Amino acid sequence: MVINTGEIARKLIREEKWTGPTPALAPGYTQANLVILPYQYALDFFLFCHRNPKPCPVLDVCEKGKFTPVLTADTGDLRRDLPKYRIYENGVMTKEVSSIVEYWQDDFVSFLLGCSFTFESALMKSGIPIRHIEEERNVPMYTTNIPCKPAGIFNGTMVVSMRPIPRQLVDKAIEITSKFPKVHGAPIHVGNPEDIGINDLENPDFGDGVTINKDEVPVFWACGVTPQVAIMRAKPELVITHAPGHMFITDIKDEELMEL
Amino acid sequence: MVINTGEIARKLIREEKWTGPTPALAPGYTQANLVILPYQYALDFFLFCHRNPKPCPVLDVCEKGKFTPVLTADTGDLRRDLPKYRIYENGVMTKEVSSIVEYWQDDFVSFLLGCSFTFESALMKSGIPIRHIEEERNVPMYTTNIPCKPAGIFNGTMVVSMRPIPRQLVDKAIEITSKFPKVHGAPIHVGNPEDIGINDLENPDFGDGVTINKDEVPVFWACGVTPQVAIMRAKPELVITHAPGHMFITDIKDEELMEL
Repeated sequence: MVINTGEIARKLIREEKWTGPTPALAPGYTQANLVILPYQYALDFFLFCHRNPKPCPVLDVCEKGKFTPVLTADTGDLRRDLPKYRIYENGVMTKEVSSIVEYWQDDFVSFLLGCSFTFESALMKSGIPIRHIEEERNVPMYTTNIPCKPAGIFNGTMVVSMRPIPRQLVDKAIEITSKFPKVHGAPIHVGNPEDIGINDLENPDFGDGVTINKDEVPVFWACGVTPQVAIMRAKPELVITHAPGHMFITDIKDEELMEL
Repeated sequence: MVINTGEIARKLIREEKWTGPTPALAPGYTQANLVILPYQYALDFFLFCHRNPKPCPVLDVCEKGKFTPVLTADTGDLRRDLPKYRIYENGVMTKEVSSIVEYWQDDFVSFLLGCSFTFESALMKSGIPIRHIEEERNVPMYTTNIPCKPAGIFNGTMVVSMRPIPRQLVDKAIEITSKFPKVHGAPIHVGNPEDIGINDLENPDFGDGVTINKDEVPVFWACGVTPQVAIMRAKPELVITHAPGHMFITDIKDEELMEL
């Protein structure tokens, strides 16, 4: 079976025939971060995303209790279509599971947020190397001193991902990613990490360190871990997210998220 | 006193020294539609706007019970800074008032939505005539057969505004308004009104009819009356909006809403 659409990928995952990370599945289809919260936190979280669109680009939100994301995958089932979920209670991860059908509550509100896979694929197509992919590591991510705009119970500073880019390709990388505002958009910083409160580039706060060559500049993009950190700080009694790398695959093509 | 900033305009209105329509106040500052709903309807309404961004462009949303729009006017007070409000009970307008301080409830959620004043000002600066302004009427608005994406209790078809544009300027009008996605963006239709379910161009469903000259084409933009119609259909027990033409004036400059 060729896994060449979001729908086919979701079916395989739903039947538990695919249980691993998703990046290689259904190339060209947009993958998304999942955040599920009880209703009482949903409006504040939606506001936090609306006020901080670069780290928290909202692709789709379901009504209270619904698990079909109607804008991005109208045959999807957010309870079963991700290979791995994480359940957090009072800010602490308590379980990793392959389905959340038995944990589902009628007051859950589900959010799908854009993910950097989309712009990485566009960068690579334009001949810009992505170091953490070359080195088969997770992208390095750092806590910064850039404050997010608070909303209700949610606040915190921005988390960024870093990709070393050859000096002569930095402009091109900025140009390409600025066309994808729904998946973090243009970099928020280029160059000196200390300017945004990062003191140790070799030891990221999340993910893995990567090699930075002499002729390369560290380029920083707003990162989808930002809302997760804001949620963990707020410590709601229950939150469900995707497990890192185990994303929801939509019916949207990456090109559709590009602004022309 | 020169009324040349949003803050000055809001102060005058708050002190009830200005009680009329707002279009001429604080030129260049973005004016916004206001919708206030009880909390139980707020998430569905936010979803309706997110799913229908052309007619319902969200500029700012306040947390439950808050009346300061932090993104667009951090010294604003949505209870007092509009010259005229309308109060609707169960889908029927019951009052017009100049302040809602005494009607305020701790569970109110306030939304500011983009308004076409912003793009009309950009069109006129580029030499494109705006007929309803020339004829000192309200813009003609029509119910269409274009379905909105429903969200929770909210649904309906899109309402559009119409501006007759000289044939040779239509491309320019499209180009200019497409740069303002936060205030309805590019037209949703150009030309034959029947294609979108409008059968009588002379008799609009809202606003006033305007002259269409021989060399002019009717051009249709998504309209901010769309969410109002969706709300009236849903008949919540209480809704407060701005009175037509009596808008909230933000600290945002129109240019800031332009995508370059």
